[in-house]
Amino acid sequence: MATIAYEDLTPGLVLDLGKVEIERDEMIEFARRFDPQPFHLDEQAGRESVLGGLCASGWYTSSLWMRAYCDHVLADSTAQGSPGGNELSWAAPVFPEDVLHFGLEVNSQRRSRSKPNLGLVDITGTADRGADRVMRFTFLGLFGTRT
Amino acid sequence: MATIAYEDLTPGLVLDLGKVEIERDEMIEFARRFDPQPFHLDEQAGRESVLGGLCASGWYTSSLWMRAYCDHVLADSTAQGSPGGNELSWAAPVFPEDVLHFGLEVNSQRRSRSKPNLGLVDITGTADRGADRVMRFTFLGLFGTRT
Repeated sequence: MATIAYEDLTPGLVLDLGKVEIERDEMIEFARRFDPQPFHLDEQAGRESVLGGLCASGWYTSSLWMRAYCDHVLADSTAQGSPGGNELSWAAPVFPEDVLHFGLEVNSQRRSRSKPNLGLVDITGTADRGADRVMRFTFLGLFGTRT
Repeated sequence: MATIAYEDLTPGLVLDLGKVEIERDEMIEFARRFDPQPFHLDEQAGRESVLGGLCASGWYTSSLWMRAYCDHVLADSTAQGSPGGNELSWAAPVFPEDVLHFGLEVNSQRRSRSKPNLGLVDITGTADRGADRVMRFTFLGLFGTRT
């Protein structure tokens, strides 16, 4: 049985998902494939944009958060995916060499009515650069129950 | 001046963002880097999960939508990024070889109070597989104005 099941993800639980430094090359490679806007590809275009500099696609930042969530929580859990969320905030641009501190907080949980061996957990994922929150994602995670 | 500016993105506007077929190899490569849950990596693990088969990370589907949005709208626009959204729904799992039809609808728009040469556009992006909606993303896009 996995270590982390529905029952462990109780409201108020806060988990540290570690720190990641934004690597310029991968950041640009991601943007070239999925979000080729000039300010995600080119230094000068970034400086001339309202974003203030070459910066990460929000989808890249979110994907890095997802990886940290996998490594710290999902890898040894009963997770069964997610139907999505109701908030995805890219509150500030993210730049190369930024160090992002990832985390999550459990907001609430409830058992599935239709599938009693599953539960839904309402979670807010966060990415902070120093004191600044640069991303927030509030979503439902589906987890198997122990009993 | 770019072809598409704030003024063009009027409420009710619907745009077709084309179709994309899900490529298994890239789908798995994305999951290995950003979302290495068993049902995103392995056929059997997928079949044994509630998702019913090896399926795409929701972040991959969303990133593919973003690329279509770039190609069809943002590439020749005054876009200045996005502060995020208030709905990201992964309504159904997406499988290799699925053909997704991407689109968007403009919900509303307003000029920025603090920066009169910018406007915020509330947009719902969609991904459909046949008659089934598999993803929906409602967000704000920031665009330069013509006047």
